[in-house]
Amino acid sequence: MTNPKSEIRNPKLPKPLFHQMVVVGVGLIGGSLALAARKAGLVEAVVGVDSDPGHREVAVAQGMLDRAADRLSGSLDHADLVVLAVPVETITALLPEVARHADGGCLVTDVGSVKGPILAAGDLAFPDGRFVAGHPIAGRERSGPGAARADLFDHANWIVTPSGLTRPEALERLARLWQGVGSTVVRMEAAWHDGVFAAVSHLPHLVAYALMNAVVGMPHWEEQVRFSAGGLRDFTRVAASDPAMWRDIFLMNRDPILQALAAYRDVLGRLEDAIRIGDGDALIAALAQARIARGEISSSSGKP
Amino acid sequence: MTNPKSEIRNPKLPKPLFHQMVVVGVGLIGGSLALAARKAGLVEAVVGVDSDPGHREVAVAQGMLDRAADRLSGSLDHADLVVLAVPVETITALLPEVARHADGGCLVTDVGSVKGPILAAGDLAFPDGRFVAGHPIAGRERSGPGAARADLFDHANWIVTPSGLTRPEALERLARLWQGVGSTVVRMEAAWHDGVFAAVSHLPHLVAYALMNAVVGMPHWEEQVRFSAGGLRDFTRVAASDPAMWRDIFLMNRDPILQALAAYRDVLGRLEDAIRIGDGDALIAALAQARIARGEISSSSGKP
Repeated sequence: MTNPKSEIRNPKLPKPLFHQMVVVGVGLIGGSLALAARKAGLVEAVVGVDSDPGHREVAVAQGMLDRAADRLSGSLDHADLVVLAVPVETITALLPEVARHADGGCLVTDVGSVKGPILAAGDLAFPDGRFVAGHPIAGRERSGPGAARADLFDHANWIVTPSGLTRPEALERLARLWQGVGSTVVRMEAAWHDGVFAAVSHLPHLVAYALMNAVVGMPHWEEQVRFSAGGLRDFTRVAASDPAMWRDIFLMNRDPILQALAAYRDVLGRLEDAIRIGDGDALIAALAQARIARGEISSSSGKP
Repeated sequence: MTNPKSEIRNPKLPKPLFHQMVVVGVGLIGGSLALAARKAGLVEAVVGVDSDPGHREVAVAQGMLDRAADRLSGSLDHADLVVLAVPVETITALLPEVARHADGGCLVTDVGSVKGPILAAGDLAFPDGRFVAGHPIAGRERSGPGAARADLFDHANWIVTPSGLTRPEALERLARLWQGVGSTVVRMEAAWHDGVFAAVSHLPHLVAYALMNAVVGMPHWEEQVRFSAGGLRDFTRVAASDPAMWRDIFLMNRDPILQALAAYRDVLGRLEDAIRIGDGDALIAALAQARIARGEISSSSGKP
């Protein structure tokens, strides 16, 4: 089935970078990439692979895909780009299968939030350097293809973590695609990426999950949360995230997360001690320090 | 100095509930209350007491006050209502002084986030039951009178925690004031209040402060936080709060906070164990449970 929307092209658009992009996992990120790449004329055709029939139906109905399939086998025959947009443990599991089915000229990339183990698995599956590990820093509270937006990657950072094996021309061609959907491409070492995201993303999610669950474990918690204006409410966005995605991230980025968690527990323990012994000066110093970080985060993002 | 704005009254407004309201601490909450009560015609005059000259200047310039003073002495002569809107330790410290300066018919209330110790101090200072302990559940990221808004208490819950000593007619008259500025008055036991807010507000703030400080303690943290879209960013609102206000809350509500913190550390420890041993099922169960709490918080507030 050919989706007629794919036939309408703006003549001013650039020559497509890829003939057939296969997006594996048509959720928020995969669906948004399909929409954005089609809209910008960067790909001629998009095939979506998803085991969830509801995801396939929504994605085709909303004009994200030219064709949807429920499995890799048979879907990669004419692909010159495969984008793995599934939970990170599934990415590493699928890489050898993609290598078996894809043509020799086909580039392969991923959008996972952990990079070291995926880069290692990608280099193993594609020893000719066709795998480019990536991570777009974009998201929404909602998940699934129904939440997808063509402008999700506009003004986002799209991190790439090439290895010594990664082919420079593969990296360059994908960088043009990510720039074409509005992102700034940022190059990083995979290990540095995993340490940074353990601190600024994975640990905060872990802390938020623990807080929500601690509250759920308290007596009469349903009555209590009625009064959670501010405070607890700030943590709820995180708890809306997809559990399978976060289970995989926590397991795959284990060591950097445990390291960041140990630092966090030290700080929390010192705050607890100050409360216990009534050390107001130590509390003021700690609370003032937190404002510094806030200022830095606000100024670096341009958002309040 | 009489502010001319106070002379303009809507003839349809109700008879004022109080002739002269003295707001001690003209910050976000005190300033907003002054604005809201004047706008609704619930008070004839508002006097603001604040030791910060900048606060007094902003409050008078923005028409919140009829008069500003830098100390309690001399400010309470004609007051029939005193509202203590300062950090909670300062509230308990000021109560005996308010009792010395205020007329016998003057009602006294507070807006502190901890209620048990303040209620005890209030009953001690006003054994005739003129003190009504209260806590409006309203706030903004910014603090100070420049952030004050006349609609801050619109659709908010205003918690009151009367004791056996509190005069019913004093409670009733203040409840009409809180309703007059748009709030729903919710009656609670002080000890229950302090347990609830330890869980839904004080612990989340403590956790957020610890997280921000853990990140600040990491090497190259300024570079790292550039990538904190989502995750860490959700915690930054909390870190903008006034340090002195939160120091006081942490110290005054120590026992309920330490109890909530112990429950939280247990949950966090179990998540850490699951990550360490690679127990994906335990992680999925915990992450799914956090979604339940989120659903409850969203549905009880009507906000996503």
